[in-house]
Amino acid sequence: MASLEELRLQLDEIDDQMVRLYEERMKVCAQVGEYKIKNGKKVLDRQREKNKLQAVSEKASSEFNKKGVRELYEQLMSMSRKLQYQQLVKAGALGRLPFIEMESLDAKNARIVFPGTEGAYSQAATKDYFGENCNSFYVRTFREAMEAIEDGAADYAVLPIENSTAGSVDEMYDLLVEFENYIVGETIIPIIHTLSGVPGAKLTDIERVYSKGVALMQASHFLDDHSDWQQISVANTAIAARKIRDDKDQAQAAVCSAYAAEVHGLEILEENINDDQTNCTRFIVVTNQKVFLKHAQKISICLELPHESGSLYRLLSHFIYNDLNMTRIESRPIEGKNWEYRFFIDFEGNMADPAVKNAIRGLREESRNMRILGNY
Amino acid sequence: MASLEELRLQLDEIDDQMVRLYEERMKVCAQVGEYKIKNGKKVLDRQREKNKLQAVSEKASSEFNKKGVRELYEQLMSMSRKLQYQQLVKAGALGRLPFIEMESLDAKNARIVFPGTEGAYSQAATKDYFGENCNSFYVRTFREAMEAIEDGAADYAVLPIENSTAGSVDEMYDLLVEFENYIVGETIIPIIHTLSGVPGAKLTDIERVYSKGVALMQASHFLDDHSDWQQISVANTAIAARKIRDDKDQAQAAVCSAYAAEVHGLEILEENINDDQTNCTRFIVVTNQKVFLKHAQKISICLELPHESGSLYRLLSHFIYNDLNMTRIESRPIEGKNWEYRFFIDFEGNMADPAVKNAIRGLREESRNMRILGNY
Repeated sequence: MASLEELRLQLDEIDDQMVRLYEERMKVCAQVGEYKIKNGKKVLDRQREKNKLQAVSEKASSEFNKKGVRELYEQLMSMSRKLQYQQLVKAGALGRLPFIEMESLDAKNARIVFPGTEGAYSQAATKDYFGENCNSFYVRTFREAMEAIEDGAADYAVLPIENSTAGSVDEMYDLLVEFENYIVGETIIPIIHTLSGVPGAKLTDIERVYSKGVALMQASHFLDDHSDWQQISVANTAIAARKIRDDKDQAQAAVCSAYAAEVHGLEILEENINDDQTNCTRFIVVTNQKVFLKHAQKISICLELPHESGSLYRLLSHFIYNDLNMTRIESRPIEGKNWEYRFFIDFEGNMADPAVKNAIRGLREESRNMRILGNY
Repeated sequence: MASLEELRLQLDEIDDQMVRLYEERMKVCAQVGEYKIKNGKKVLDRQREKNKLQAVSEKASSEFNKKGVRELYEQLMSMSRKLQYQQLVKAGALGRLPFIEMESLDAKNARIVFPGTEGAYSQAATKDYFGENCNSFYVRTFREAMEAIEDGAADYAVLPIENSTAGSVDEMYDLLVEFENYIVGETIIPIIHTLSGVPGAKLTDIERVYSKGVALMQASHFLDDHSDWQQISVANTAIAARKIRDDKDQAQAAVCSAYAAEVHGLEILEENINDDQTNCTRFIVVTNQKVFLKHAQKISICLELPHESGSLYRLLSHFIYNDLNMTRIESRPIEGKNWEYRFFIDFEGNMADPAVKNAIRGLREESRNMRILGNY
């Protein structure tokens, strides 16, 4: 039996030849790319790829190697497609950008909508992004905020998309698919809940606690110590605070921010009641125009997948082959199709980068109903 | 310029040589595998792989090709690891299974816990899986059900994990991580909501509707037509039904199943009020023993990822290279670590398959805190 060292020398020799062949192959693929540009042919030729996979796997001698060679060639063909997309970009044949580039958002003249009421965390996010004195108003629900920008009643909406402890805001993902609005910005703000009641109320008076369901969950350690309290969920933490003010009932309290308590004239019964002291929420800024900021560096897309084993994996290869860092992947059920999923993917990049163009073209060709939700 | 046909002939020649080299390489890798088995060495040698990637990419002439060759070799090395895992399996060196194989669950003598109360959808799932006359009891929350099996108060718990329209039950994913309980089965049941009130109540009497938050959402089209109704969420649809019975208030109604209405002596005011007529929920059967059924065909795992670009993609390659069909991927925030995620992955397979063993070994070595949640 050969020693490990001898075996590794053999591998090195094989690898020398492999790399040489790889380079030769890419050279020929570049010539195919030139031909395709000249003749206006699409980069992805599914039939040709199928035939090639069939042919190379037949050349291998064992089942294990047939499968291995097939996988290898799927990757090689994906690489040559990437090369050809780059050639298209160089030849100026990828066309105009689907989003219009902007230098900056006109925060001064913008009218902004947020869900909830005075004192909502989304109001804090609005002020954080657009400035303390921005021109804003509120509606009750996320849906109403999306409608307000669709209708033009507001220029921008500020909406929560993800919490550091509770995870994705599923409803927002669904609304991003339902409405043709686009993400143009994001901001992260800390979420620090208090328990607040009417002035004069004491902790021992409390029988019912109102808040947004996810906020009740985020304060569950504190609330578990008062398991006799009834928990009632309403649309928003600040709406809960307003209700406590309106009901004037010492047995009722809200889980809301200190700011919401102040705005609605409540007294803080307990500060900082979240389980996680670093709790924060990422908000997105949404508009009805298909625009992106010049310095944007994150892209959100959604897509549906054909029912094929490995198709998700193959799609993800477009991020790797184009050197794009995928930062997030989420799935949501597709309405009316049981156990089929729509994927939401965030990755780093700007619409104007060739690598992003390459990836998007590839993703679109290999998925269903792909949409760019924004570049921000 | 060469014609497309000529170029394709050149590719065919290159591919002949490529496949030959691939086969040679795998032969040498098999010998390395034998050496590793003899000497008790681990299959994955990170330092050796790093050096090899460095060496092959240096051999390539352009930046594009350096990157391409690196990707190619990541795949090739993953394949040779797979080959070596197979050799380990053949040599009986992969050791005992971590889960104990069972012929069937002893449904007759089992004591089963479900969350909610009489008439809950989870009770319907319990009866569907364990039979109409099974020995079951209820607790209020998912957590209490997980505690009941951990403590041994129940042998099995039946809990919802995913709804066809609302998506994942996030809390259940978090509880699967928190408790050392295991999934041993699953069942899907249709979810058909009614609006039910006290006998004699009419639709026009209703002012307040109680249900589980997600059920209110699933009936949102119907409830939107009655936007003056206050919606109050409680832990469970059947608990809502019980509350309506107890409160005896004609202004109150529950969104619950027809069965829950019957059990609690309510009158159905409106049948079938969900938005989606094919709405159904997948329930899992959980136990405190690390067992799996002989005919099990789905595996659920969770894992955390190191912060590296592409690491998710690389992990997923273990499913492809082992020919395992990944059916689901979900992410949840990791408590105490903002914007870091734990992934939950379902794939088809049985613990006793070598391919599954291979994949699990690879996944465990390349991720953090990987856990097998069950094979069912």
